[in-house]
Amino acid sequence: MTAGVVDRTSRHVAVLGSGSWGTTFAAVLADAGCEVRVWTRRPEIATEVAAHRTNERYLPGVRLPDGVSATTDAAEAVSGARLVVAAIPSQSARDTLAPFRALVADDAVVVSLMKGVELGTDRRMSQVLEEVLGVPPERLVVVSGPNLAGEIAARQPTATVVSSVGAGAASEVAAACSTPYFRPYTNADVVGVELCGAAKNVIALVVGVAQGRGYGFNTMATVITRGLVEITRLGLVLGAHVETFSGLAGMGDLMATCASPQSRNHRLGRHVGEGMSLDDAVVATGGTAEGVKSCRSILELAERHGVEMPITQAAVAMFHEGRSVDEITRALIGRPQKPETSG
Amino acid sequence: MTAGVVDRTSRHVAVLGSGSWGTTFAAVLADAGCEVRVWTRRPEIATEVAAHRTNERYLPGVRLPDGVSATTDAAEAVSGARLVVAAIPSQSARDTLAPFRALVADDAVVVSLMKGVELGTDRRMSQVLEEVLGVPPERLVVVSGPNLAGEIAARQPTATVVSSVGAGAASEVAAACSTPYFRPYTNADVVGVELCGAAKNVIALVVGVAQGRGYGFNTMATVITRGLVEITRLGLVLGAHVETFSGLAGMGDLMATCASPQSRNHRLGRHVGEGMSLDDAVVATGGTAEGVKSCRSILELAERHGVEMPITQAAVAMFHEGRSVDEITRALIGRPQKPETSG
Repeated sequence: MTAGVVDRTSRHVAVLGSGSWGTTFAAVLADAGCEVRVWTRRPEIATEVAAHRTNERYLPGVRLPDGVSATTDAAEAVSGARLVVAAIPSQSARDTLAPFRALVADDAVVVSLMKGVELGTDRRMSQVLEEVLGVPPERLVVVSGPNLAGEIAARQPTATVVSSVGAGAASEVAAACSTPYFRPYTNADVVGVELCGAAKNVIALVVGVAQGRGYGFNTMATVITRGLVEITRLGLVLGAHVETFSGLAGMGDLMATCASPQSRNHRLGRHVGEGMSLDDAVVATGGTAEGVKSCRSILELAERHGVEMPITQAAVAMFHEGRSVDEITRALIGRPQKPETSG
Repeated sequence: MTAGVVDRTSRHVAVLGSGSWGTTFAAVLADAGCEVRVWTRRPEIATEVAAHRTNERYLPGVRLPDGVSATTDAAEAVSGARLVVAAIPSQSARDTLAPFRALVADDAVVVSLMKGVELGTDRRMSQVLEEVLGVPPERLVVVSGPNLAGEIAARQPTATVVSSVGAGAASEVAAACSTPYFRPYTNADVVGVELCGAAKNVIALVVGVAQGRGYGFNTMATVITRGLVEITRLGLVLGAHVETFSGLAGMGDLMATCASPQSRNHRLGRHVGEGMSLDDAVVATGGTAEGVKSCRSILELAERHGVEMPITQAAVAMFHEGRSVDEITRALIGRPQKPETSG
């Protein structure tokens, strides 16, 4: 970073990316009193925001607050920004964000809205930001929770977790995005928060399968609860805190994602549960889903640490090894009787 | 108890109560190989089970397994039963079960399917059973989890918690009810399991209000997650274990109850969220709901132990103090910024 220091009293925040979550979070920041510049690669979105205060492609039917502007000019977006928010698809984050290293102010706080694990490196998104932008962990903040973009854009009440090893950075971001409908809680467990964000897609996929198979709320609740138990088990081995998993970024996000019929993981799983082949389901969903990619890397990580993850294993068996839904259901339910918690 | 001992190899189980959960659990036990006698106060149900293998009033459309019979004769139901399952409405359990004290075998294991706190005494259901039947805690077992009766009766896969301070009794019940669609996990934390069962009704009530107000999945997930945080806080003070709350009897049951539109708490809350007065909502729901009764006693318990429970407090404010939904929403979201977990 070579871009000098920022005025901490400035209200200027940059949001990098104009997808639905990035645009929604820009609106939250503006409602909280920030002056927000969204950086987009698409000139038509910059024009549309200026002319109509909308982003119909990614946030249909929503009028953005006056405090949001958009530009395709990277330097204009981040110049003088005290907060820089990254909202880029996880697998392209490294390439897309590289040019920003020279532009982000030396003392800016960088916020990740991104979820997932980078293929090839197994890095969490905050680790990617640390490497790409050269920002130290105490100025890196992760935001995650039960945060379906469309509902927040409609200003429905929700809460979220603002997580950083730097308590000052977390508080600064929490203050910057706090509104009468959006309530941030701070949390120091970045590893746990990011693990939850990546692993929830696998659980949503399996919940989708169960619903496609015709199963109801008991099965959904069982898959989510036992899924969270196995994610927690892995998280504890990786140094995360147990409370994170039963909190907003864990259970909260998982529940919102699994209850909403809109998530891509959920839809893809449902097609498979209804009896479609994986290939047909990918076509019907309009592409593959994050959980299909990440179930294998999460299972590998678990095996490396000797952690048992039967639901993640079931996802791998159904989505990569051609095993049938009924066979997997029988195997999951028929496991030997055991205590609810081990140890 | 004066009824001698039972043959532990006997497959005979008694279920006291012929409501939907009692009848469903009888079917699970029969599918697991038990010979089940259901005790009912209603002769027409005993006749219907014998003639048609159905209980249309409480479990419409379900054919019961051959291993289930029903009787109005208390002695016939429990004579020689190695397990006695109590499935009576919580507020009438004490009176209804008193006559069984002389009938239950001295070494029988007694299972509670009942949820709630007894009005007037603040006793948990297993404590009521201990007093009424004279059974010691190590032979008392509580079953609780994401267990909507209709879905289990349709043999959809689910899991549950079988909880007792007596490890042998818990294992015996787990073995007796384990089937290819019903997976029990043992758990020694009876206090936590029963607290979850009572407190979930309050959360379901508030989730119903939010949905009636037009809020979506984020708000639902936030209320459930933060609701569970405050229940956990109370539970820890009362000696419960933290894992129980993020397990099947806590988060699992809460999620199934809140996702299902059938729960009475949920329906009553939704009417109020839609703008009905409490009196009109009670009429529209066909009676009051457990959460309306228990929110006050849970809040009192919390205050006695110095535990903060803002969501339970919101339920008391809306259902007993005439405060409006919007006023309460603003108060909940507008609380001072804080860490996700305290301490």
